[in-house]
Amino acid sequence: MPDSDFRKSFIQSDLSSFFEAQSVAVIGSLKEGIFGGYVVIKSLLDSGYAGQIYPINPAYKEVLGLKVYSALREVRRKIGLVLIVINSRTVPQVIKECAEKGVKAVIVISDGFAERDQEGVRLQNEIVHIARQSGIRIIGPNTAGIANASNGLNLCAYESGYHKLREGPVAICSQTGMTNPQAFPYPDLQFGVSKICDFGNKCDIGECDMLEYLKEDPKTSVISMHLENIQDGRRFLEISKQVASRKPLLILKSGRTQEGARVSASHTGSLAINDQIFDAACKQAGILRLEKFGDLFELPKIFASQPLPKGNRLAIISYTGGAGVLATDEGAKYGLFVTKLAPETDEMLDGIFPGLGKIPVDIGPPSVAIKDFYALYPKILNAVMSDGNVDSLFNVLWVDVKGKMIKSYVETYEQLKGHFQKPLVTWIGGPDSSIIAELTQRLEGLGFPVFCDLETSIKALAMALRFTNIKRST
Amino acid sequence: MPDSDFRKSFIQSDLSSFFEAQSVAVIGSLKEGIFGGYVVIKSLLDSGYAGQIYPINPAYKEVLGLKVYSALREVRRKIGLVLIVINSRTVPQVIKECAEKGVKAVIVISDGFAERDQEGVRLQNEIVHIARQSGIRIIGPNTAGIANASNGLNLCAYESGYHKLREGPVAICSQTGMTNPQAFPYPDLQFGVSKICDFGNKCDIGECDMLEYLKEDPKTSVISMHLENIQDGRRFLEISKQVASRKPLLILKSGRTQEGARVSASHTGSLAINDQIFDAACKQAGILRLEKFGDLFELPKIFASQPLPKGNRLAIISYTGGAGVLATDEGAKYGLFVTKLAPETDEMLDGIFPGLGKIPVDIGPPSVAIKDFYALYPKILNAVMSDGNVDSLFNVLWVDVKGKMIKSYVETYEQLKGHFQKPLVTWIGGPDSSIIAELTQRLEGLGFPVFCDLETSIKALAMALRFTNIKRST
Repeated sequence: MPDSDFRKSFIQSDLSSFFEAQSVAVIGSLKEGIFGGYVVIKSLLDSGYAGQIYPINPAYKEVLGLKVYSALREVRRKIGLVLIVINSRTVPQVIKECAEKGVKAVIVISDGFAERDQEGVRLQNEIVHIARQSGIRIIGPNTAGIANASNGLNLCAYESGYHKLREGPVAICSQTGMTNPQAFPYPDLQFGVSKICDFGNKCDIGECDMLEYLKEDPKTSVISMHLENIQDGRRFLEISKQVASRKPLLILKSGRTQEGARVSASHTGSLAINDQIFDAACKQAGILRLEKFGDLFELPKIFASQPLPKGNRLAIISYTGGAGVLATDEGAKYGLFVTKLAPETDEMLDGIFPGLGKIPVDIGPPSVAIKDFYALYPKILNAVMSDGNVDSLFNVLWVDVKGKMIKSYVETYEQLKGHFQKPLVTWIGGPDSSIIAELTQRLEGLGFPVFCDLETSIKALAMALRFTNIKRST
Repeated sequence: MPDSDFRKSFIQSDLSSFFEAQSVAVIGSLKEGIFGGYVVIKSLLDSGYAGQIYPINPAYKEVLGLKVYSALREVRRKIGLVLIVINSRTVPQVIKECAEKGVKAVIVISDGFAERDQEGVRLQNEIVHIARQSGIRIIGPNTAGIANASNGLNLCAYESGYHKLREGPVAICSQTGMTNPQAFPYPDLQFGVSKICDFGNKCDIGECDMLEYLKEDPKTSVISMHLENIQDGRRFLEISKQVASRKPLLILKSGRTQEGARVSASHTGSLAINDQIFDAACKQAGILRLEKFGDLFELPKIFASQPLPKGNRLAIISYTGGAGVLATDEGAKYGLFVTKLAPETDEMLDGIFPGLGKIPVDIGPPSVAIKDFYALYPKILNAVMSDGNVDSLFNVLWVDVKGKMIKSYVETYEQLKGHFQKPLVTWIGGPDSSIIAELTQRLEGLGFPVFCDLETSIKALAMALRFTNIKRST
């Protein structure tokens, strides 16, 4: 049957056989190292995966306290998922063995397929052929793996060094290994992840299957995705529309330029899509398009932690007027406009310090003029957040080298927690990056996202407003 | 005399009376705290300033082991520079005392001038009037201060917590205190700074004076500047042209949008310039325009450390094809095109691993397939840097959680040092941010810039190429 029919016949629950696999066979090298079968098994054990693990390797009897089987057929029980990390030339034979064993889900980590050369293309076609005949679904080949933070199914083939992924609402999927646990410091991502998936060459499962799965996944409420190409434009548009009206769908598309598309074709073996067409599709489907690699991790934070803004009236509090102007410029770019405070807020703030009651609220002058200013800080932040003219707040904090004001900031944010149905985003300046990192961690620990820079903070608010409007229009 | 005549009559050496001041009087509170005269004096002492320091305050006899004078006139010797951090209402009187004492250079930290209200406008006009009558030049008011890294003249009114600024070739000037030592972690900037200046309200000295000074400053070879408005468009264009053909001149202009310009006017008391006009002026003058606040610190790194590229042929080495595509897209945006390697390089790399000899050089597959791959790493990097078809190199490194490959990377970069007349920029991925920070520090310590993200790495190369072309065309 043709490709698209085959894909359409695939039902959502099938990706559960990957992400909810009750048992995993790992076929590959069991030598200790930073890559390979050993890493996968150690990862599964360390992250508390509760299912059965079957290492397969004729040269071993035992690894990490587990019995090693010489071949798939030696395993008596049903196998939910097989992960393959062996030389590409031997993969077709192993896929046949999977078919014989009745396996339905296979992850092929091995590279040397369509991304390499003509022989690789032939091999890839061969495994797809075997898989389709036997109803096997494949993620990969040439993938770094997948992970599910809620059941310890950490199937990343590279050592990441940390055991557990922090569980959270963000699914991160990608057509590159650069978003897998070994390539990004996930422990720094306070809001956690639900699923991670590197599609690799997408010989079978790709973005559409994943979107169908994530649409229904109760653990995922925001999706961040990197793509170089689209398997099936029509299906992608259809499923994206369904997803994007329910869950924020953030997509970074590379291969945007002719040059980039050419390079992409040479390393994935697939054709890129015209960027203007893709852009139009994004607008139609309600996809939130990203522009930078780092946005894949940064921008979901607002959706993972903050309420959506109800409108475009932006408030800014800053310790410097300069940041206020920069933020105003950025906001205007996206249709977020600096608000006027309500008269009573204005009056209250002016009572604290003359001129304080306007947006941007510049706390620089009073912070040096007023003795014990930081005792007033909760009052100021609260007043602005409470103001009916404010839909969202960008807060610029300054933290000194000794972190003297950390306590006051943390207490202030603690008091805000859960009290306002509007988003608050924060950016922190100061002379010591470790103190900034500490405050970042404390505030994010309370559920308030701190962004890496001013521009990303505002972009996050703009994306959130965009999603509000997408939801309203559907 | 009219403003512009007065400014034109000002000669370059006058800013030396600020940055090379042989003695400094500090008029303001001497109470310990994070802001004020005490901080300035402590900073001067801690950073090894060798000139005379005269604290002025009638309520003290001694501070930090220095004699305190009750008034300027009590100081018998000539005073090079006066720094004022007192209530704005008393500033005019003190400026008069400066005039009487024959002082020619004054920094007014105090706020509450044109940025505050009408009374502030009046006060500001008054100090300008007194200053002009007596030949005094003013930086400020409402400035966070200035610094010169080569003589310990750290006149920042806020505590930064570190004593010495690392000396380097980058001048950072700004119309906000956000670039001053208390607001940015300068110890992380491996390439160092020459001068820092917050212009504040620019009642007298502004960007043009500073550009004239920096043009001739032998310690400054790259200038990074934030502006909200321009004092004198014609003079700015003229001096920018002169500077920009000799030293890279990077400018971040805020108040770009109508909204931003309005907010800027309200906090600086001055009118913003139409952004399209400014953009045209930048193109005409050869100014490298920045888009993000962080670029003020990141982008100068390439000029501070790397040779200029001779052409637009970009090489990419990456541990993942995905980064190669993203970098290709970014390069194409700016006219940097992925090069073809010379046949001998191609052949040599293919000899190491099939298919390695093409750009992007994807070291992902060989790094796991070849035992002891990292012993080959210097050879690969060297081959690409030596290739006559390569004008610049973007190198994506991956560092594992144990930092196993740090040694190999550092040795490789050590061997490259000083051998190539082409720029090399680096971006690092990995699962542990502290290991990434360590490697960043090591490589930057060797003189190779590591950028915060992929997009900024490529933008840095693009800026460098732009400067090559500006130099060629002048």
